[in-house]
Amino acid sequence: MMTGQALAAPRILGRYRGAIERELRELVADHKLPLYQMIRYHLGFEDRDGGNIDHYAGKALRPSLLLFAHEALGGELREALPAAVAVELTHSFSLVHDDIQDRDLERHGHPAVWQLFGVGQAINAGDALRELAALSMLELQGRFPPEVILGALQLLDRATLEMIEGQYLDLGFEAQSKVTIQDYLEMIERKTGALLGAALEIGAKLAGGDQQVIQSFKNCGRRFGLCFQIRDDILGIWGDRSRTGKSTTTDILRRKKSLPIVYLLNSPQGAELRPIYQKAALDKGDLRSVMEMLDEAGAREWSEGIAEEHCRQALAELKGMELPRWAGELLEELAQFLLTRER
Amino acid sequence: MMTGQALAAPRILGRYRGAIERELRELVADHKLPLYQMIRYHLGFEDRDGGNIDHYAGKALRPSLLLFAHEALGGELREALPAAVAVELTHSFSLVHDDIQDRDLERHGHPAVWQLFGVGQAINAGDALRELAALSMLELQGRFPPEVILGALQLLDRATLEMIEGQYLDLGFEAQSKVTIQDYLEMIERKTGALLGAALEIGAKLAGGDQQVIQSFKNCGRRFGLCFQIRDDILGIWGDRSRTGKSTTTDILRRKKSLPIVYLLNSPQGAELRPIYQKAALDKGDLRSVMEMLDEAGAREWSEGIAEEHCRQALAELKGMELPRWAGELLEELAQFLLTRER
Repeated sequence: MMTGQALAAPRILGRYRGAIERELRELVADHKLPLYQMIRYHLGFEDRDGGNIDHYAGKALRPSLLLFAHEALGGELREALPAAVAVELTHSFSLVHDDIQDRDLERHGHPAVWQLFGVGQAINAGDALRELAALSMLELQGRFPPEVILGALQLLDRATLEMIEGQYLDLGFEAQSKVTIQDYLEMIERKTGALLGAALEIGAKLAGGDQQVIQSFKNCGRRFGLCFQIRDDILGIWGDRSRTGKSTTTDILRRKKSLPIVYLLNSPQGAELRPIYQKAALDKGDLRSVMEMLDEAGAREWSEGIAEEHCRQALAELKGMELPRWAGELLEELAQFLLTRER
Repeated sequence: MMTGQALAAPRILGRYRGAIERELRELVADHKLPLYQMIRYHLGFEDRDGGNIDHYAGKALRPSLLLFAHEALGGELREALPAAVAVELTHSFSLVHDDIQDRDLERHGHPAVWQLFGVGQAINAGDALRELAALSMLELQGRFPPEVILGALQLLDRATLEMIEGQYLDLGFEAQSKVTIQDYLEMIERKTGALLGAALEIGAKLAGGDQQVIQSFKNCGRRFGLCFQIRDDILGIWGDRSRTGKSTTTDILRRKKSLPIVYLLNSPQGAELRPIYQKAALDKGDLRSVMEMLDEAGAREWSEGIAEEHCRQALAELKGMELPRWAGELLEELAQFLLTRER
């Protein structure tokens, strides 16, 4: 299905990016408290000293999916924008807290919020992002019937809780000696799949799709979420720091149970990895050994195969649906991007 | 107005406590993931190993206020329960995160969540409590018109954001050399006043009160919030650890800018406190000196006077409203409790 060539920016992201960024900027602009400086910094709208800059940092994948589903089912883009922004803010909230939890020093090539402002205030920044998301959803009032908005809120709240459950499981894996591939897939379906699923689901719901259609969009998004996370895991080991904006070897040094590692641990070669992963700290030699073991076990190719399979299933979910042709094309292109992206 | 005698449990708390606890227990009971063990532990439904215990720890002040407003305006208690529980869960979320931020080791006489489960997972526990609150609000569906529920959600979300802003300011005060009494009062109006205000406001809104009535209940709750927090500050210095469940001297050792300290810092005697508060660490002698300075400046009596004034204004907000007599009595009693409580 896939050519293996990396797509820099699939059209589905370009299509909505401007509108999403404008709405986001407006929402966080007129708050005076320096609390919101942290938020604007995290989103890439300001530098660490509060000066205006222009590098909105996110891919805006989730809000783009929401707007895509809405438009593909005949909805009006502008109407659904507050929901799209809410999904992006929910994602941002999770990133700010995740960076604290994972002790990640960088995000998008810049110091993580907690690195600059401390753990305590970074917790507040994440909490505030979560509230801004909730308030953005309420901006749907007057655009959609109240019961539809309540339904959309329920989808977002449930997905957010699932995402937190996934983060809980992921953190727990670090201390857990046995993690099966099944454990791992269930974890990322919550951690990453739930919110991507909700993005397509909410877009479809706001567009007035019937229950079956909404469910298919949700399933598609969850599958895409699995691909996305598996690619993230691959980039976390083999990615190029200058493109991902994150230090790459840290996933191994921190003994993160990402998919290639879980595969290796559960393979015959896993026996060699275990004693290394039990050491108090890994040195450069250990790192080299782990990279060699991953290569020998074919962990990268195997992981890529799993990602491809989920992307295939994601597209299959929407196959019977007679979407407009442009929509089908954008989805195919997105699938290729998710499998080959370098950042 | 006040006799100065401590009330163990004002009737307004006893009246609703059973119903609130039952609803809360049910909401957090049937989640399998150990993530929810942390939540049940924090609420006092389980011990640290997941064994059932029976010491629901909170005062349930906020949800009681919500149900009180609802009932006083003719609403049916049971109908508003999910909103009451949502307000309590929102409060719990803030406590779990606050304990991390303030490095508080204990809560209700037991180790704080982060002490037992680590900072990373405690962040998740707080985040999950926030989501459970949102989902509980959505349980109002079918009991109230959708647009009323959206309105109530907006009140809760705005108050929660204000609460986070207050926590941001409070944390910032620790590093800030000059904090005026006005700064302090604005901070606690957000940190504590906003959610208490929203509790009464949401109860009134769900009961169908008109805009003026809802506003008065909100103002009353915010004033009560100020009293509550000022009493908390007093207990944080002069309270009895066996009753508050918190170590008392830590507020001073941590150089927390609570009201008695802010008063002292802004009084002529403040010049003596400043060099002590600039030391890297305070010893027992410093602690004794600070306590003496507070006594000499009359910081406790002054703080109690401010709390009394806000309680008086809180009651005045509802004076013209012709509430049922039982309601007026419960409020008077609550005011006395807020001013004299020992825990």
